Amino acid sequence: MTLSVNSDEHFMKEALKEASLAFKEDEVPVGAVVVCEGKIIARAHNQTEALHDVTAHAEMLAITSASNFLGGKYLENCTIYISLEPCLMCAAALSHARVSKVVWATDDPKMGFSRMEKQVLHPKTTIMQGLMAEESSQLLKTFFQSKRQ
Amino acid sequence: MTLSVNSDEHFMKEALKEASLAFKEDEVPVGAVVVCEGKIIARAHNQTEALHDVTAHAEMLAITSASNFLGGKYLENCTIYISLEPCLMCAAALSHARVSKVVWATDDPKMGFSRMEKQVLHPKTTIMQGLMAEESSQLLKTFFQSKRQ
Repeated sequence: MTLSVNSDEHFMKEALKEASLAFKEDEVPVGAVVVCEGKIIARAHNQTEALHDVTAHAEMLAITSASNFLGGKYLENCTIYISLEPCLMCAAALSHARVSKVVWATDDPKMGFSRMEKQVLHPKTTIMQGLMAEESSQLLKTFFQSKRQ
Repeated sequence: MTLSVNSDEHFMKEALKEASLAFKEDEVPVGAVVVCEGKIIARAHNQTEALHDVTAHAEMLAITSASNFLGGKYLENCTIYISLEPCLMCAAALSHARVSKVVWATDDPKMGFSRMEKQVLHPKTTIMQGLMAEESSQLLKTFFQSKRQ
C-alpha cells in the first residue's frame, strides 16, 4: 500500500518517528507534528527528562514551534497529529491555540484529558485563593478598560 | 504595617510586580513567582503576545524557570504565587510538577481551572482518535517494558 503524502497516516507516521526519537533519548516516547496546508510546519517529541521540565511535552513544544513558524499564536488552520492522547495541560494548550483538528493514535487511560476532568491539581497540593485579589483584579480591570477606550 | 519577607503577602506582591511588568508590555497582566525554602527561585509574567505563543502564560514560564534553577522537574517543596487563578493548562502543568502549594489572588470566572472542567478542547476543534494506535501503543509498551527489566 502506498500512502498519499497528505494522508492522515502519512502525518501520523511522522509523529511516530518523533516518538521513536524520544524513545532513543530515553524519554517517554510521544511525538507530535503540526500540519498546515498540507505541510508539516512543526515537529517535536517529549523532552521532559532532558530539559527537567514537565511542560516539555511533545504537543507543547510543537505548539510553540508552529506558532513561531507562523508568527502568530493561533493555529486555526492547523491539524496536530500526536502519537498519544494529550493530557489535560496539552489539551488546554491546544484549546488556547484554537487548533483546528486533533488526531491522536493511542488512548491514555491514566493521563488522557478525556478521563482527567475531575482532578486537575495534584492531590497533595494545597490551595489558597483570594490573597490580594483586590489588587490583582484592579490591575486586570484597568488593563481591559484601557483596551476598550 | 510591615510585611515579613517570608509572608504570603510579600510573595504575592512580587507576583503582582511581575503582573505590572506584563501590563507595561501590553500583555494581559498576570504574574507568578515560585518560592522554595523562603526564597524566590523563579519569576515570570505573561508573554503570550510578545512570543506569539499561547503556552507562554506566567505560570508556565515560572515552572520552566524554577525547574531549570533546581535542575529537576519536580517542584515538590515549592509554593507558586500567582496573581490570577490558573487556567486548565497551567493547573495541569502545576499538577505534573507536583508543586506543593498554589496561592492565587483573583479568581478567573471565565478561564479558571476550577470552573473549566467540562470543556477542555475548543468547541470548533475536530477530534480524531485511534489512528495508528497499535504502533504508538507498542512503542510505549516497549519503552516501559525496557524500564522494568
